[in-house]
Amino acid sequence: MTRIHPAPEQFAFTVGGLPPLATADVGEEIEVFTEDCFSGRLTSVAGRPREVAPFPRVNPLTGPIELRGVRRGDVVAIHLVALTPARDWGVSTLSPNFGALSGTRLSPNLQPETAEHVWIWSVDPATGTVRTRTANGRELAVPLRPFHGTVGVAPAHGEVRTSAVPDAFGGNLDVPALGAGTTLYLRANVPGAMLYLGDGHFAQGDGEFGGTAVEGAMVTRLRTAVLAEEHLAARDVDWPRMETDDEIIAIGVGRPLEDAVRVAVHSLVRWVSQSCDLAPHDAYQLVSQGCSARIGNLVNPSYTVSVSLPKALLPNRPVIMDGIHDRLRGHREVAA
Amino acid sequence: MTRIHPAPEQFAFTVGGLPPLATADVGEEIEVFTEDCFSGRLTSVAGRPREVAPFPRVNPLTGPIELRGVRRGDVVAIHLVALTPARDWGVSTLSPNFGALSGTRLSPNLQPETAEHVWIWSVDPATGTVRTRTANGRELAVPLRPFHGTVGVAPAHGEVRTSAVPDAFGGNLDVPALGAGTTLYLRANVPGAMLYLGDGHFAQGDGEFGGTAVEGAMVTRLRTAVLAEEHLAARDVDWPRMETDDEIIAIGVGRPLEDAVRVAVHSLVRWVSQSCDLAPHDAYQLVSQGCSARIGNLVNPSYTVSVSLPKALLPNRPVIMDGIHDRLRGHREVAA
Amino acid sequence: MTRIHPAPEQFAFTVGGLPPLATADVGEEIEVFTEDCFSGRLTSVAGRPREVAPFPRVNPLTGPIELRGVRRGDVVAIHLVALTPARDWGVSTLSPNFGALSGTRLSPNLQPETAEHVWIWSVDPATGTVRTRTANGRELAVPLRPFHGTVGVAPAHGEVRTSAVPDAFGGNLDVPALGAGTTLYLRANVPGAMLYLGDGHFAQGDGEFGGTAVEGAMVTRLRTAVLAEEHLAARDVDWPRMETDDEIIAIGVGRPLEDAVRVAVHSLVRWVSQSCDLAPHDAYQLVSQGCSARIGNLVNPSYTVSVSLPKALLPNRPVIMDGIHDRLRGHREVAA
Amino acid sequence: MTRIHPAPEQFAFTVGGLPPLATADVGEEIEVFTEDCFSGRLTSVAGRPREVAPFPRVNPLTGPIELRGVRRGDVVAIHLVALTPARDWGVSTLSPNFGALSGTRLSPNLQPETAEHVWIWSVDPATGTVRTRTANGRELAVPLRPFHGTVGVAPAHGEVRTSAVPDAFGGNLDVPALGAGTTLYLRANVPGAMLYLGDGHFAQGDGEFGGTAVEGAMVTRLRTAVLAEEHLAARDVDWPRMETDDEIIAIGVGRPLEDAVRVAVHSLVRWVSQSCDLAPHDAYQLVSQGCSARIGNLVNPSYTVSVSLPKALLPNRPVIMDGIHDRLRGHREVAA
Repeated sequence: MTRIHPAPEQFAFTVGGLPPLATADVGEEIEVFTEDCFSGRLTSVAGRPREVAPFPRVNPLTGPIELRGVRRGDVVAIHLVALTPARDWGVSTLSPNFGALSGTRLSPNLQPETAEHVWIWSVDPATGTVRTRTANGRELAVPLRPFHGTVGVAPAHGEVRTSAVPDAFGGNLDVPALGAGTTLYLRANVPGAMLYLGDGHFAQGDGEFGGTAVEGAMVTRLRTAVLAEEHLAARDVDWPRMETDDEIIAIGVGRPLEDAVRVAVHSLVRWVSQSCDLAPHDAYQLVSQGCSARIGNLVNPSYTVSVSLPKALLPNRPVIMDGIHDRLRGHREVAA
Repeated sequence: MTRIHPAPEQFAFTVGGLPPLATADVGEEIEVFTEDCFSGRLTSVAGRPREVAPFPRVNPLTGPIELRGVRRGDVVAIHLVALTPARDWGVSTLSPNFGALSGTRLSPNLQPETAEHVWIWSVDPATGTVRTRTANGRELAVPLRPFHGTVGVAPAHGEVRTSAVPDAFGGNLDVPALGAGTTLYLRANVPGAMLYLGDGHFAQGDGEFGGTAVEGAMVTRLRTAVLAEEHLAARDVDWPRMETDDEIIAIGVGRPLEDAVRVAVHSLVRWVSQSCDLAPHDAYQLVSQGCSARIGNLVNPSYTVSVSLPKALLPNRPVIMDGIHDRLRGHREVAA
Repeated sequence: MTRIHPAPEQFAFTVGGLPPLATADVGEEIEVFTEDCFSGRLTSVAGRPREVAPFPRVNPLTGPIELRGVRRGDVVAIHLVALTPARDWGVSTLSPNFGALSGTRLSPNLQPETAEHVWIWSVDPATGTVRTRTANGRELAVPLRPFHGTVGVAPAHGEVRTSAVPDAFGGNLDVPALGAGTTLYLRANVPGAMLYLGDGHFAQGDGEFGGTAVEGAMVTRLRTAVLAEEHLAARDVDWPRMETDDEIIAIGVGRPLEDAVRVAVHSLVRWVSQSCDLAPHDAYQLVSQGCSARIGNLVNPSYTVSVSLPKALLPNRPVIMDGIHDRLRGHREVAA
Repeated sequence: MTRIHPAPEQFAFTVGGLPPLATADVGEEIEVFTEDCFSGRLTSVAGRPREVAPFPRVNPLTGPIELRGVRRGDVVAIHLVALTPARDWGVSTLSPNFGALSGTRLSPNLQPETAEHVWIWSVDPATGTVRTRTANGRELAVPLRPFHGTVGVAPAHGEVRTSAVPDAFGGNLDVPALGAGTTLYLRANVPGAMLYLGDGHFAQGDGEFGGTAVEGAMVTRLRTAVLAEEHLAARDVDWPRMETDDEIIAIGVGRPLEDAVRVAVHSLVRWVSQSCDLAPHDAYQLVSQGCSARIGNLVNPSYTVSVSLPKALLPNRPVIMDGIHDRLRGHREVAA
């Protein structure tokens, strides 16, 4: 098993254009340490997010990890085996000019800005919750549900992007489904795919409306597989897809949010049509009557949505993505 | 109990400006028959939706029902006790120039239009599913989950709207949460509130992306209550709210979809802040880390989203909306 | 000539559903007095807009004017002959929770609201300007360019809308092109069309970004004509169109702004294609290389854009809308 | 004077991350040759755009040009002295799945795609027009108005972007105002600024709705200047600005189009407020009553708008951007 724990100066704040931090074989298990989005420097409610982690020095990523033998055009599968909080605390913030209920740099207004707030959350595995206390003494507690806000590969067309951006290459998706037991499918845009992970979240509601999740450092074990570009099931993977034991999930990325939704629904319809030998309009109909559609983030430079369909609704028990997820997840306790 | 079964010529296609179809007391149980959105006229895959139900003769509504004693400004609670399919079949369609994956009258393009398709679904209470068969012989089956796409009251400011439109007055929300066991809260804009229901759905995925649900005639039993405008808990009900045994749900209506989301999140933050004595930024933080955000519809003249928070996450077991939901739902088997 | 000067209690705040205020023959000249959007009650910088004109008692309209013999489905042409400020002052405001650089009821945020401001402008026909002075003594002066923010007919489908709303029926378009010398084309949705005018603007920049123009009472002379629904040139008038001596202008209404643009471009392409015997893709190409596209408003419940093409770019000097504009404008000094 | 005429293999298809193609002194005149967006390979109506210029090998750029002594944070002024078509023909296209009246990769639908079309335009300096002929023999002619669709500097934060993208660094703005006599202001994100130009347009309507302008190779003369980051007038230049003899123009970039508009209006308000010693709400008011707001493009990965104010409306004849434009434009016949 390859273990990757970057030195402080080794974290990446851009995606693409970097030499590999490590190299791994497709199929071997990889253990990765990821820092929180503030590089672990925001440790108290008195801390100043924009001083300890000034843009673009936010959201440090672990990677890139070169996957031996992966060709440009192949589809890479990343299965998250287990995510373990690396610390017993997490942190969340509200920042001026950021978040879904504020003007932003990309959608400015002339109103006075809101105040900055920081919450420190304690991780309580015993109760499966993260907890914090408000200034007026109320306790806020939400379920502990670790996932990675950011998992991606090098962008296409030689682009280099900041770690804040989600796109077809994955990146800062902030989709809560990306936790233990989930397989993420991404098209490789360069040889070796150049995988990276970061932005560990101990908890997050849909939309990440306040602008951050309960952010925390993470130790994550993952396995990878590859689906050759030539394979029929790889054909339509132009945007990120996820798979769990129970669902297939198409991820839409874009702005405005309608466009992210259209990308996801269009992607899911093609996925269902190809997997189940359904005409596009029949696949569209099945998706329309059976899907769930949840907002991933409404605060990043591009927004994300996840549109999912229970596998139980797919006619004739099709083989999904050549059965990669079932092979990667292995025996049942792994995802537990 | 008041029973309301309109004659064919009595169905309403607009909201507001009509004399009451019936009058009921607040608190009494009401049984309502609603037609499907095609007025029951689309009965085979060979049918032509736009011939049997040409716009605006779509989505017939049962109402208005005048609620005795309700004042303009009061908040009306409508609790759906039970929804029973009135027929053993439902119908869904794909129509040219309509739906989330097509240009529309409001967002036109110059591409050729798609073909029209109709699916007839059989209702199978035994398996709790609705089923149809594709032209190439595949069976599509999704869970039977009856709800009303359209429940509302007369609009504010003397407006009259078509039954296709959702807004602050409710209307064509197409939010799947609006089924048995759910309480809907709406601000009354006129004396008597002038309640109406319709658009029964036997099943629908989030977003109603194809443009219709599995549409069907319904027999529905409901109870109502009123919260005086002066009550503290009524203060912030500017947009529709829903409550179930387990969740509070803020409904956002608007276009673009971001605006619908902002309306819902803003509404939920105020709801949580008022109910739990939390500062707005603490309520915003709790919503950000604990909410679910699902798309209601992306196909109506305005879009809808539902943003919900589990009651279990509300600190100090607050009384929600003066306890109306608990009183209306009564003993447990009602919602079963 | 019919003169219409409503009594204070006769102004309309909704569109549709009202009996005619007056009746006129198609073709006769009509003189109309319109109040400003604050009903003339906001007369000093110390005034409170929301107290003197609380929603929905804003934007009073003069009408409806029944046009004898107009059938539902016909296209009505309204030519504005001359607009004369009825007072020597106008007023503009900035209001909390309103305008393009603020959160709004339809797109809320949690930032503190901005302060309310009022400017009183003096009308100076000699210099052709309107002028005001800032608190720090600077003079602001912009060109005097009178137009009507709101001109429309009764909505389709029995709807009744507030006077704040623009739509396919015209209404609160806030497009600066709608001044003297311009002909507006609207589809009649009811017999007699039921025309109304209001919202006089002495000046306004594109977008009406601050939320109001320099608002003022107006005396306006207009002439009308009708194009039968059966006429080829009437076929595609599903959205408002305007014509001047030099340009044809398609008006798009919608939200988000992209949709308003698509409506306008699609409408202009069909107009050019029909008028000039061009294939749709050739008409689209001519529009793409020759049009101007300006924002009308970004502050109303729906946004508006105007996409125009110089008549000089239309191949083969086509007859536009059966030549109605040329007949209505008459001899040259009229529009001067 | 520095002359830059790249060899075929020297054109850039990404912005940022490249070594300088040339180096020039701030202030010296530079002459640049730019290829058309199809690299000059689309020469007949029978050509296939996606074969001769497959994405991302579209929109070749000339540069980067390193400007000696420019520091990261300084504002660079690029004044276009003269633009001369390098060929007597230009080319435009309509492509499937592209343009404002079509679904796109970023906003997909399930409708059949439109056909591909190519138009070859002849440049006629004598009449100041570009002309083409339709398949049915109609001549289309629009004014010859050369400008650069793409002018920019290296992106911030180490990003590398394709030449198709507009952003705060300029890039593929497609704003028709960027022609002879216009000065463009951009913040330098790296030492030397790393300037590039391309995407010559002989004509384009607002919005570039069809997806291309009349594209053509160009020979362009320009002059540069620098405004130190410390200068008061440089403070607010977070987004592109333009200046002509008669107007100041704020460029907004973003998606949805509303956000691009907000960026531009917010930028213009700050510009007017700083230049004219006006309170922000007074500057906002002047912009609201006096601006023009035109759509730049609605077809690139981000949209653009230009919001302009006549200099004649600025109180007290302020010095704009330290007078750089007046110095760069020099004596009058230059821009003629």
